[in-house]
This record gives sequence, C-alpha cells and structure tokens, in this order.
Amino acid sequence: MEYQEPLFFRVMQWAERADRDVVDMVSGNPDWGSPPAISEGLHEYADLGGDAFQYAPSPGLDDLREEIAARRGVDADRVVVTNGGGMANTLGMARALERDAGDEVIMTDPVYPYYPGKTTMLGGEQVFVPTERDGSLDPADVRDAAGENTACIIVNTPNNPTGKVYSEETLRELVAIAEAVDALLVVDEVYDHFDFTGEFTSALTFDSPNVVVTNSFSKTFAITGFRVGYAVFPEAHVDAAISRNMLTNVSTTRPGQYAVLHALRETDPDYYAESRALLENRVDAFTAALDEAGAEYSTPDGAFYVLAKFPGFPGTLENVRALIEDAGVAGMPGTGFGESKAEWIRFALVTPRVDDAAARLTDYFA
Amino acid sequence: MEYQEPLFFRVMQWAERADRDVVDMVSGNPDWGSPPAISEGLHEYADLGGDAFQYAPSPGLDDLREEIAARRGVDADRVVVTNGGGMANTLGMARALERDAGDEVIMTDPVYPYYPGKTTMLGGEQVFVPTERDGSLDPADVRDAAGENTACIIVNTPNNPTGKVYSEETLRELVAIAEAVDALLVVDEVYDHFDFTGEFTSALTFDSPNVVVTNSFSKTFAITGFRVGYAVFPEAHVDAAISRNMLTNVSTTRPGQYAVLHALRETDPDYYAESRALLENRVDAFTAALDEAGAEYSTPDGAFYVLAKFPGFPGTLENVRALIEDAGVAGMPGTGFGESKAEWIRFALVTPRVDDAAARLTDYFA
Repeated sequence: MEYQEPLFFRVMQWAERADRDVVDMVSGNPDWGSPPAISEGLHEYADLGGDAFQYAPSPGLDDLREEIAARRGVDADRVVVTNGGGMANTLGMARALERDAGDEVIMTDPVYPYYPGKTTMLGGEQVFVPTERDGSLDPADVRDAAGENTACIIVNTPNNPTGKVYSEETLRELVAIAEAVDALLVVDEVYDHFDFTGEFTSALTFDSPNVVVTNSFSKTFAITGFRVGYAVFPEAHVDAAISRNMLTNVSTTRPGQYAVLHALRETDPDYYAESRALLENRVDAFTAALDEAGAEYSTPDGAFYVLAKFPGFPGTLENVRALIEDAGVAGMPGTGFGESKAEWIRFALVTPRVDDAAARLTDYFA
Repeated sequence: MEYQEPLFFRVMQWAERADRDVVDMVSGNPDWGSPPAISEGLHEYADLGGDAFQYAPSPGLDDLREEIAARRGVDADRVVVTNGGGMANTLGMARALERDAGDEVIMTDPVYPYYPGKTTMLGGEQVFVPTERDGSLDPADVRDAAGENTACIIVNTPNNPTGKVYSEETLRELVAIAEAVDALLVVDEVYDHFDFTGEFTSALTFDSPNVVVTNSFSKTFAITGFRVGYAVFPEAHVDAAISRNMLTNVSTTRPGQYAVLHALRETDPDYYAESRALLENRVDAFTAALDEAGAEYSTPDGAFYVLAKFPGFPGTLENVRALIEDAGVAGMPGTGFGESKAEWIRFALVTPRVDDAAARLTDYFA
C-alpha cells in the first residue's frame, strides 16, 4: 500500500480542477481556528530574538516538557518533543525495530497510511489485523498475529479513519500482548481531545515498560503546519529516542514550541469543549444525510472522519472522481486505508460546509 | 566516536557550574542577531491564522522553494525544505545508503560529529580520510578510500571545525570520484555566507547527477532554533528524498518557513556582509592572542571556528576543564572531532567577548 499523500494529491487536484464548486472533505486540516494564545505566543516569541532564536534542547524546551508531563501524569524525562505527531510515530516505531526484537509491525486494516509507509522506510514488515465493521479491534486477533518476530504494535485511538475509540479493556489486553512478546505498543492519541464518548482511555494509564504514547498539538490547536508533537517513552527507551531525534532533526522548531507552551497555559477549557461540540454537531448532520442517502456508515466515537458506503457505488477512485464532478463533494477513496474499506469513502468533517455536502449527497443518491 | 551533544553538554555544564566568569566558546549559536525581517515575518504570520496555520507541502512552501532555487540557479523541483541542515544531511545520506550501492560513507577526520552519528543510525559504515594540518583535503586520499562499496562521500565547506574552504579543483575532483564509484557526494554548505576568501565554490557549480547540496538558514540568519534548511537533489533522487521527508516529519514548520521567506526577500545585503566582517575581525583578534600565547593554529578561510594547540597542553577533557576553571574560557576538546585533532581545542567565535577570551588565554599561557 502506498502512503497517503500521492493519492491525497490526486483527489485534491480533481477537486481543484473541477468545473464546479466542490466541498473539500479530503484533508484533515482543522478549520475552526486556533485559540488566540497561539498567535499571542508567536508574537511574544518574535520579539525575543537573540538567544531565544537559537536551538531548543533536543528533547524539547524544559518548560514545555514539564507542562506536558504534568498533564499526562508522567515524569518530564520521559517526554520527547518532536516535529509533530509524524516524527513522534517515527521515533516510536524506529525504537521498536532497532532492538533486534523482530522486524514485524502489527497494525490494523483499515490503517492510517503513514504507518505502513514508515514501516517500509524503517526496514520492517507490515502485518495487518482486520478490525470489525464498526472499527473495533479484537485483541484476540492481535494475539494471534503476534509472536517472537513482532517488534511493534501500532494503534490509533480515537481512530482515523474509523472514528473508533478503543475501550480500556482492549488497551489493557494490547499492553499485555506487547509485554508477552516483547514488542513496543505505540499508541497514537492525536485525536484525544475529540472523544465523543467520554470514555477515551490513554495507554499511559497502564504504566508499562512496553508502551510508547504519541501525540501532537496539530489537531488540538488547529496548527498542523507548526509541527509540534511529542512522544512519551518508557524509561529504558527514552535516551535512544532522544538520540535518534537529535541525529535526525537536531531539535524541534522553537517558535512553535514557544507558541504551544503559551497556548497550553492560557487557553480556556471551553476552547476544547467547543471544538468537540462543533464536530459532534457535524457528525449528527452528516450521518442524518447519509441515512437519507441510503448509505451504510459507522457513527464515530471520536476524531473527525466518517466512513460511508453508498449502495451500488463502491469507493473506487473513479467513483470518488464522479462524486467530485457530479455531486460537488470530495472524499478519500477507502482503498487509501487498506483492503477492508475498498467499498467505502472517508469524509473529513473539518469544513464549515458539512451541511452543504450533506444536502448534495442526499440529492445525488436520492 | 560519539556524536557531539553528550560531550558538548558535559563541557557546557562545567562552564555553567564554574565558580567564576567563563566565556562560552563551545556552542555554535550565532550571537550577532537576526535581520529584522525575521521578526517581522513571524509577526505577519502570527496574524494569518486559519488555513495559513495548516500543513505546508512536504517539500516546502512553493514560494520558498522558488526563492531558494532562483538564488542557487537550480530548478525549484529539486529543492526540498527540511527541518534545518540536520534533516537535509539526514535525507542526503539516507538516499545515498538506500540505493543498494554500498554501505560505506567517506568523511574527513576531523569531522563534524553528526556525520558519523547519522551514518550509524542509517546502517552505514564510516570510512575516515585524514585532512592536512590546515584542514585541506587531498582528493587523491578520497580516491584511494573510494570503491564499489562507497555509497556516500560527505564533506563540509566552509568547514567545521577546521575553517577550510575547499578549492574549486578539490570539489571538481570529489565530484568525479563520486561519479566514478556511483556514490552520492553530499556537500554541506551551511557556512557559505561566512567565506573570508571570496573563493568559495558551491558544489552546485558542477551540475552532476551525483551531487546533493545541503544548506540551512540557521547560521545565515542567526536562527538555529527555527529549523529551516534545505537540500538540492539531482532529478533522479528528489522524489525519494521528498517521500522520506514526508514519512519522517510530514513537513517542515510553516511559521519558520514563512519568516525565512520574508527575510530572504527583505534583508539588505549589508546584513550578510556585516556579520562576515564581524567574524573576520574576531578571527584577527583571537589569532593574534594565540600568537602571543605561543599556540599553533590554522587561520580559518571561513565559518566561525578556530582550532588551537597550546604548547605542552593537549586538548584533553581534563585540560578543557582546567581552561574553564583556571582561565575562564570554554572550548570543545578536539577529540570530539576525531583522532587527528586530539591535541587541539576548538573555539567558536560566536560571542561578543572574543577579546576577553583572547586576553585570558594570553595571560594563562604567558
């Protein structure tokens, strides 16, 4: 499977070149605006100059690591600030694979396409475990796939593209499996602020020497372009992760770290609640339209994607293009996320025009 | 050899904990201040918000790639904007090593310590070629070391730590060697704005399918913390480099890219000339003091480091510590850069207190 971007670009180009207005539900860029403290933080930083413009420590600014650690209930020494969630996952997977503990990486199907792409880059082998139709993961399937050649198990909760939030019990069992086969369980929690169930469980709950948790401020603060994320490593692995971060990137951008730290300190809790509520309303409106259109779909527990399957209209590239040109709605073909969702189309609800898109889909399929 | 940072941190800790005033000549952070357009650019960016805060394209903002390409006389499609010069070198070396064209990386001794560190991280083997006492590199030595197992030759001009600027003829021969053995020649030109000879030659002069040039705005604009650099790849390798950049980091920080683009457009040429002149004056003052102290040294052609060897005082960790505590001057032990400079100490001239340091060294060794 190719990683996401070439497919993504092809779809985006169709949307841009279409001879009509198109609602973009392809990209995962938050549209609701950053909290004011992000801009304030950048303005503050811009006036500092001098020493403040020079290298941050490789693992991140001390104050930012402390702030993250306090929020996550871990020791600050375990936090590595990274160039976004992307580099956090790279570090976690690389650490898993470089231990001579096997070369297999277990991941779900459907999958966030960067995971298989990173696996190939890092010299590992993908092992796919199917999920249920609603996106839930049966730990027994992971147990069956795991063995002495398993270096890494990587999961994403709340999940892109299924919207599933894994239960505490599922995570507990995944941790136990990772410990049993000496794998690192990398849990990507970048959508943790967009949990509609109130039951999201962080893998940090389990305090295991086999768990790496990754996260990012890209979605939380609507700043995907800033590139500030982090990973929380077990004590035994954090030094190796910091070394790899240093040898790859030296350190993570300091203006971004400064702005994020300021935003963590100054942002009203309402900001998080309001963006979550906005997304919940969009889910309601969009899935109601899918009902009218006669589509099958799973209501997301979290994140901001809906997978839909329209009757007699599989999620092929051709059909995705037809939907752009004939209905004016652009989604991602399910094939981008693995074999199991080849019939489906993923719609990202990060546009204020969800209602327009819903109406267009209802008209098109009615 | 370890990469630089642990040694660097140890020396910095001695300097901080010393029971006296110490002039820091360890770190390579420019001290002369960024051009005003850097702050202006960040302020401008901070007010954009919304879409402008979202992902830049993986290879970099289009306008920034165009601006870099125009200055370097290359096609913009060959430019990959990276998380600093660090990631630019990572991409160049990784591309060299992933081609099944051997696993050896030829580098000089003394060497910028990240090169051997990155080589190990990427699964390659270091092959060291000694330089002359003044830092110059005899291409015949590289030719002797090169063979079918050579994947990469990496050099740095102007050079850290020797200050050498390689001649056009040296570079021409290095290009020919790389072509002869199908290696990628990675030329790290991050100090290109600090050439005191007026004879610096970029490896882009040779338009070879085997040349990757890396650079950064960290030193040029005194913004090591922003993390904006770039690599210029040959056509045949640029897509693979962009993929690796995407799979590792997704993209490079957009606030930093925006500020750099603004600074490239708005900065008066005097800024570059003034920082270069400032460094030349510091070189004069510092080497005059080294003469008085009876030290051996090589006058740098470029960059901002001086390697010095004091009579009966080899550049061991113990002596570096003694110099901090007894003379109040902190430098880097030569062992940090390879075996050949074990007797030497590297002083970074990026402090306004070069005169103080010079006087202290003169007193100490007089």
